[in-house]
Amino acid sequence: ASELWVEHIGESRSMRLATSIMRVQQLISSELDAALKPFGITFARYEVLQLISFSAAGRLPLSKIGERLMVHPTSVTNAMDRLETQGLVRRVADQTDRRRTFAELTDEGKQVLAQATDAVMAIDFAVVGLDGEQQDQAFELLKAVRSAAGDF
Amino acid sequence: ASELWVEHIGESRSMRLATSIMRVQQLISSELDAALKPFGITFARYEVLQLISFSAAGRLPLSKIGERLMVHPTSVTNAMDRLETQGLVRRVADQTDRRRTFAELTDEGKQVLAQATDAVMAIDFAVVGLDGEQQDQAFELLKAVRSAAGDF
Repeated sequence: ASELWVEHIGESRSMRLATSIMRVQQLISSELDAALKPFGITFARYEVLQLISFSAAGRLPLSKIGERLMVHPTSVTNAMDRLETQGLVRRVADQTDRRRTFAELTDEGKQVLAQATDAVMAIDFAVVGLDGEQQDQAFELLKAVRSAAGDF
Repeated sequence: ASELWVEHIGESRSMRLATSIMRVQQLISSELDAALKPFGITFARYEVLQLISFSAAGRLPLSKIGERLMVHPTSVTNAMDRLETQGLVRRVADQTDRRRTFAELTDEGKQVLAQATDAVMAIDFAVVGLDGEQQDQAFELLKAVRSAAGDF
């Protein structure tokens, strides 16, 4: 559609970049979801598993998950509900602060995460067509967009 | 989260680019939706309006909309339902081929589209932090990802 735009509302570099970002996100998101389907999880839920596994203590306050993945608390709750039903995570109450709940991986969660990681690495995270240097270049350019939009 | 990844599963350029694309899409998508909120439409529905307006005949077969925006026919149906309820588009049966339905803009749809275009252009399509040349660079890099993923 971007060619049409150029024709109709004038050369708009920002527009064609915006629609391109939308499109490429759709593409890689659906490829990543497809790669993770055998494990019954989406890439969003995969990111939650991965994030929990990163924590030094093996557990992470639910509030931190939303913060770090930069998603709405409701999305974290939904993802956690699904993952808990699947037996991949459990919620654990904080003994020192009752208002705080931790998320931790179950043994099955750890196993699924390891297999899922192999699966997404096998398709190179669905970001193909660029060599390593170009991937870094694209990353840096998008980083500037994120910074300008108030992201960290 | 990408710094953590690098630490834990090794330097993965493709991974950090993939998560960066996801993130920047979220950011610009929510900024575009916010800019369009006064008009009661999302960016996805804005794209439908824009696409119809591009057509030489002022109308477009529904099947073409999905094709050009590269979204599922169900998404087009949903967007069209919403837009029709809002009085911004109408469905018109093809006189020569009864199986085919056209979408066209109502007068109000044209008016809303013009105002909405001003609104998204005013925020530079939420793609800020890059100069024009960098925007082109980012576009070209993402184009390679799209091509490799079978996009056109």
